[in-house]
Amino acid sequence: MRNTGFYDEPDHGLTDEVLAETDVLTWWAHVTHGQVKDEVVDRVQQRVLNGMGLILLHSSHFSKIFKRLMGTGCYLKHRGADEKERLWCTDPSHPIAEGIPDHFELPQHEMYGEPFGIPKPDSVVFISWFAGGEVFRSGCTFTRERGRVFYFSPGHESNPIYRDEHVLRIIANACRWAALPAGPALAQGHFPNPLENSVRPEGS
Amino acid sequence: MRNTGFYDEPDHGLTDEVLAETDVLTWWAHVTHGQVKDEVVDRVQQRVLNGMGLILLHSSHFSKIFKRLMGTGCYLKHRGADEKERLWCTDPSHPIAEGIPDHFELPQHEMYGEPFGIPKPDSVVFISWFAGGEVFRSGCTFTRERGRVFYFSPGHESNPIYRDEHVLRIIANACRWAALPAGPALAQGHFPNPLENSVRPEGS
Amino acid sequence: MRNTGFYDEPDHGLTDEVLAETDVLTWWAHVTHGQVKDEVVDRVQQRVLNGMGLILLHSSHFSKIFKRLMGTGCYLKHRGADEKERLWCTDPSHPIAEGIPDHFELPQHEMYGEPFGIPKPDSVVFISWFAGGEVFRSGCTFTRERGRVFYFSPGHESNPIYRDEHVLRIIANACRWAALPAGPALAQGHFPNPLENSVRPEGS
Amino acid sequence: MRNTGFYDEPDHGLTDEVLAETDVLTWWAHVTHGQVKDEVVDRVQQRVLNGMGLILLHSSHFSKIFKRLMGTGCYLKHRGADEKERLWCTDPSHPIAEGIPDHFELPQHEMYGEPFGIPKPDSVVFISWFAGGEVFRSGCTFTRERGRVFYFSPGHESNPIYRDEHVLRIIANACRWAALPAGPALAQGHFPNPLENSVRPEGS
Repeated sequence: MRNTGFYDEPDHGLTDEVLAETDVLTWWAHVTHGQVKDEVVDRVQQRVLNGMGLILLHSSHFSKIFKRLMGTGCYLKHRGADEKERLWCTDPSHPIAEGIPDHFELPQHEMYGEPFGIPKPDSVVFISWFAGGEVFRSGCTFTRERGRVFYFSPGHESNPIYRDEHVLRIIANACRWAALPAGPALAQGHFPNPLENSVRPEGS
Repeated sequence: MRNTGFYDEPDHGLTDEVLAETDVLTWWAHVTHGQVKDEVVDRVQQRVLNGMGLILLHSSHFSKIFKRLMGTGCYLKHRGADEKERLWCTDPSHPIAEGIPDHFELPQHEMYGEPFGIPKPDSVVFISWFAGGEVFRSGCTFTRERGRVFYFSPGHESNPIYRDEHVLRIIANACRWAALPAGPALAQGHFPNPLENSVRPEGS
Repeated sequence: MRNTGFYDEPDHGLTDEVLAETDVLTWWAHVTHGQVKDEVVDRVQQRVLNGMGLILLHSSHFSKIFKRLMGTGCYLKHRGADEKERLWCTDPSHPIAEGIPDHFELPQHEMYGEPFGIPKPDSVVFISWFAGGEVFRSGCTFTRERGRVFYFSPGHESNPIYRDEHVLRIIANACRWAALPAGPALAQGHFPNPLENSVRPEGS
Repeated sequence: MRNTGFYDEPDHGLTDEVLAETDVLTWWAHVTHGQVKDEVVDRVQQRVLNGMGLILLHSSHFSKIFKRLMGTGCYLKHRGADEKERLWCTDPSHPIAEGIPDHFELPQHEMYGEPFGIPKPDSVVFISWFAGGEVFRSGCTFTRERGRVFYFSPGHESNPIYRDEHVLRIIANACRWAALPAGPALAQGHFPNPLENSVRPEGS
């Protein structure tokens, strides 16, 4: 893992070279999503489709790269009232939940609530309960061609979320899961010659 | 249904007014995908997310709107050798397959083959067998927020595909399915007031 | 719809004749699941696989027929403390949520909590928030061969749940959805003759 | 891995002790499925739900344990005409496909064809093409509570299928995938005490 993405670096530090040697990219951003260049989004998307893992944290639900990979608006309800959040594991088969109890609490956090504008996840690993009355699919996996994607909502900057042992364990588990080897590279395009002799090649 | 999308109409005929009164849009295109304006793609995407059904036919796998809604490259293998295609129904629970036998044949068609660069469909209703040796997920459903999407690969312009009774029935079934009523409009954004009194409103 | 399933009727009223003319069966049961005869469970399962819709309410998460169709233990957490439940719609594309607001409340209900021992649903239409701190996937769809199944957790016998307008609307919507026409009957078994001449029939 | 399951061993060799120390069980069977004792099926099911991986090969699509875990009939079309099968990878993100080309052939094999009576898989990793004209979802993953399950159809006893390098690689990959660590053990049952003070404990 590399700590990348600063706006003042060329290509935000996300050059072809950096991406090519990256197995899993973690993405945290808030507010300034619009400053990320479209050509960098194109490049990161392409690298995910080619097999790089991508872990999106907290407000990156609204990043260009997440919206690009989802194809939806990715919007949600939110409220900054420092209320209690309790995460429940709803896919106990998933390696991302290894070593995590069936629920744990974040004493004070920003509320993110349903409806969350995403396609159906491959797995909803965690669902959050909020003291103010909402629920949220807070840990969701997706596959996009050869790439694995995990969205995890904890991580508001004014709360010490990334000091919570369970949160750190989940992110580490997610990086390991997203870095698992993938299947074949995509062989696509024009294949004029059939695999079976009973069919004549195109144009013959 | 309206027959829309000509490049020489303003906004390709896909104005806000037309889209607002459209329940299900069918989309067929080949080769000239790049001529579709990005702002029209934005508008159609938004209307799908708000509940309009979308049926994408044949080469529209590579249309801007399909790639936008999928978040992937949507590429595939192809070969124009007029070979036999046989479609097998692999989701007999689906209303799109009503009245269709468990398999049917298209005597001559363009081959579209795997790997097809799409996210996991909600349902793979049909899988195609090709005489030249390939297979293809030829009928796939997706949901995107409130909208239902069906991709159906038959429809090459040099073969009389749209005279096949099963193909026509599937497209009609798909339009009915995509037009089913949806759930609530999306209430998203800033909700400073919690639903439970135990939490103080944001900023209080 | 028929009101069936009494233990003192022959076959609990679920004869082949009754099932054959039933489009959608609703099932409510509590405590006495063990009294349902296995041969009746076999018959209902077979009828679902052949296309009958099945709506399972509240404690029928632990009925023989639900466990049979899921292949899992179907267990959950529970508490009878008459606490507030709030249901959130998490699939706004689904016809089961038509006419339902994005959330609604049941003032007093039994708590059902995660982890819920079910396979991944096709759609999680509702997720419940409980005042005591838990969450639950309270409205889940499944397909089993030609049949559509909806599990909906509201309905404890000591609360007036089935007088709630939203609950009644959801059950009515679910019946309509489960009764949609299905695809082809399953043609399975021994097919000694290949569809292509390039292969010799079995045994030839 | 242990080679277990002989009918003349007590409990077919699948005692509680053996299962408890088994990470992943591979299951091959043909014809004599009915001789497997129901109490052994109960035990293997319970062990899968508690996290043991299960790899089901070829005719074990019709084993009691597979039908139990699926909740469906699991039937298919079949023909023993020693025809060519070609497997196509349709989930290039999956670790089970690591090191496998985008397609490979088995020169002579029994045909297994759609419709295959299974619930929607979590992932369809492979789809097979048969020379006689059929297709089949030949590599499918499922999760059942904490357990991971992979069904893989190659393996007819009269063909040297298990000498094919790709088949062997896929089975090895599947064992590694099914043995990945899982999430929390299932905490289910009666929880009379709410997690939040705003709700009074049950019975108080």
